[in-house]
Amino acid sequence: MIRLFVPDDLKDGAVLRASAEQSHYLLGVMRRSAGDEVALFNGRDGEWRAALRAVTKKGCDLALTAKTREQVNGPDLELVVALVKRARLETIVEKAAELGAARVRLLITQFTNADHTNVARLQAIATEAAEQTGRLDRPQIISPVKLAALLDGWSDRPLMFCDEAGNAKPAIEALAGGPASGAILIGPEGGFSPDERARLRGLPYVIPVSLGPRILRADTAAISALTLWQAAVGDWR
Amino acid sequence: MIRLFVPDDLKDGAVLRASAEQSHYLLGVMRRSAGDEVALFNGRDGEWRAALRAVTKKGCDLALTAKTREQVNGPDLELVVALVKRARLETIVEKAAELGAARVRLLITQFTNADHTNVARLQAIATEAAEQTGRLDRPQIISPVKLAALLDGWSDRPLMFCDEAGNAKPAIEALAGGPASGAILIGPEGGFSPDERARLRGLPYVIPVSLGPRILRADTAAISALTLWQAAVGDWR
Repeated sequence: MIRLFVPDDLKDGAVLRASAEQSHYLLGVMRRSAGDEVALFNGRDGEWRAALRAVTKKGCDLALTAKTREQVNGPDLELVVALVKRARLETIVEKAAELGAARVRLLITQFTNADHTNVARLQAIATEAAEQTGRLDRPQIISPVKLAALLDGWSDRPLMFCDEAGNAKPAIEALAGGPASGAILIGPEGGFSPDERARLRGLPYVIPVSLGPRILRADTAAISALTLWQAAVGDWR
Repeated sequence: MIRLFVPDDLKDGAVLRASAEQSHYLLGVMRRSAGDEVALFNGRDGEWRAALRAVTKKGCDLALTAKTREQVNGPDLELVVALVKRARLETIVEKAAELGAARVRLLITQFTNADHTNVARLQAIATEAAEQTGRLDRPQIISPVKLAALLDGWSDRPLMFCDEAGNAKPAIEALAGGPASGAILIGPEGGFSPDERARLRGLPYVIPVSLGPRILRADTAAISALTLWQAAVGDWR
């Protein structure tokens, strides 16, 4: 069953117009035709079955037939990740969607080489991964912000800091018993600068954690950290 | 400091000939010259510092100058992974090296679409990732074998089975307290067949585990499973 994220409200009797991209996917790529069913979700109204209608070369309607799942959202988990090379950043966003992150916030640090990225493309990747992984919402991708500005505006939510250089506790141990709401901070390939590390380690809400004895690439660190967070305090328990 | 895996014995006074690929990398790509130092490891003799010597257009020698680390190997962790699409299989092998797997065994199941792959290329990817992650050995890549043959020849080592369809315990809980020697089984994108699942679930050494409520791609499942194994019984404790 094909699953599609839509922005529209989902309710009994609703008939939506599929977007141009979704029409192309349904009709051109997947060869669906009138009467075939898909699953729809919007992050608010659960999952609905819908039938293709008014199929033309230009597109199709999606007529809702039944609600099949009640809305359930994952934990309030945010991934804050430095701008790394495009392929690895795309992998990170795809995996954040599979691993149940609610948001991915992009970050600029002293050692990042970029100050912008294609946020719309990353949002599309996150949406497609959310469709395939079976969740009922999609991660929101948030435009890059500098580390200093991020920390200046931070509340007191726990921020898990994957600290390669320090003597931090193993992640699973450092997180255990904490709240099921928080964020994970992943630096660029060159790590954080000494100034950045010093500031991070001095903040009361920062939880330094270790991800083992080997040097991990940024994408590996992000996936491992998301996994351990879900296992320790998230919805993998 | 550039790190290189070499097959040769490493000992005081040894002078090795760099392979053609390594010479090209050192001289052509990284622009190193006579007297520059690299780090060498072979999986047996620890890590050694070596200086470039006899540099010509054709290659260079590596003259060992000092032992810098004693040999330490990671836990006896094997990843058994079905042949998935090439890009995802390469990601899995790279990540298995970063996450400390001792071996990656390739697998053919009822739902795999391929029956062969370029093992030498995967070994090269594993070796390069081992060089970058700082470990003192490299994962061995083992040619594809059919699931039935694998299970017929299995000893009694624990085999962690990531079972999407069942009611298995969370991985971190199912593994806790177990031995620091075992294997992780990752199926193809279509999962295991009902017959395969039934056989696996009936074997005394198989530990069914859950990787959370969402559907994971094979590469994500492999990385998450390796992470949780290291956190529960491996060298991330």
